[in-house]
Amino acid sequence: MAALPEPIVALTAALGKLPGIGPRSAERIALHLVQADLPAVQQLAAIILHARERIRLCSICGGLTETDPCAICSDSRRDVSIVCVVERPTDIWSIEKANSFRGRYHVLGGKISPLNGVEAEDLRIGQLDARLTSEPIKEVIIALPTDVEGDATSFYLARQLAERGAKVTRIAHGLPAGSGLDFADELTLTRALEGRRELH
Amino acid sequence: MAALPEPIVALTAALGKLPGIGPRSAERIALHLVQADLPAVQQLAAIILHARERIRLCSICGGLTETDPCAICSDSRRDVSIVCVVERPTDIWSIEKANSFRGRYHVLGGKISPLNGVEAEDLRIGQLDARLTSEPIKEVIIALPTDVEGDATSFYLARQLAERGAKVTRIAHGLPAGSGLDFADELTLTRALEGRRELH
Repeated sequence: MAALPEPIVALTAALGKLPGIGPRSAERIALHLVQADLPAVQQLAAIILHARERIRLCSICGGLTETDPCAICSDSRRDVSIVCVVERPTDIWSIEKANSFRGRYHVLGGKISPLNGVEAEDLRIGQLDARLTSEPIKEVIIALPTDVEGDATSFYLARQLAERGAKVTRIAHGLPAGSGLDFADELTLTRALEGRRELH
Repeated sequence: MAALPEPIVALTAALGKLPGIGPRSAERIALHLVQADLPAVQQLAAIILHARERIRLCSICGGLTETDPCAICSDSRRDVSIVCVVERPTDIWSIEKANSFRGRYHVLGGKISPLNGVEAEDLRIGQLDARLTSEPIKEVIIALPTDVEGDATSFYLARQLAERGAKVTRIAHGLPAGSGLDFADELTLTRALEGRRELH
């Protein structure tokens, strides 16, 4: 049995490391690329490099941006009194897509996780602290995940920030819109019950 | 609502053109790449370009190869008397994986399809004809798809090649191994019935 030529094998392996690309998918893309028009392939390689080289982290919020400060941090129409704390830069776009938050962001860069060697000092907590001094921030909304580490980090932050006199809130966790009880897992249901509100 | 930076949008669009990559998957990979280590991204771009630049079509069979002739055409242990005709270069690897064919290949480069402007002259039929003269080929196995165009092309080829005195066969179509009647579509069942063999 003849094997695939080495450059295709190497390309398949490299593509297989991308998120969500399995071995079959990687091979299919590799075989497509080696047969595609050379200019199109050169353009793809250039677009990948260009994007990686142009995108940096905003020095204020830590989000992904082409300009520094980013479009959100430099937008005077955004409410500077509210900052939403997220784990990763991409979380910003998840919230932006909902189009219901008009404040600014702060990327923590991770969650406190002693087992993985991530301590509070490794996160962008100092920078958030500095922003509370330099910016007229009145409320910090914590939008970290609901897992154990996200919870621990949220409580740690809440304690730290409360000392600075800021109002600290956390986004609600409960049933997703349009979803019934039968599709909810136990943790979601527990959170939904804990977060119950009185009906007026 | 702030939009994603332009280089990420451009990268997402470019990745979305790859086979099997939907818009969500493309965005996920794009966001991964702009946050990945620069050397790793540079390496990926280089591997893509390298593969596309190194891989060419074998001048004999038309398969994908780094060397010309390809590893299969230059392997003296392969049976030169049998040639398997396939539609695309990648079909060769599908058959090689089964590890049950020891002859050589010939890539047609498509199927006759007047509606799409593909005539017999656009395919590598002339090259196959030339091989029948220059190589000691005794049997041509046609392994084109079972669709209307694949059937038409197979019959056209069979007629052409029969004039050259070569034995022409077509691979069997029927029920996939391990599959029952309840999962077979009508065309597969029709082919399976047509291709029935006497039990000895």
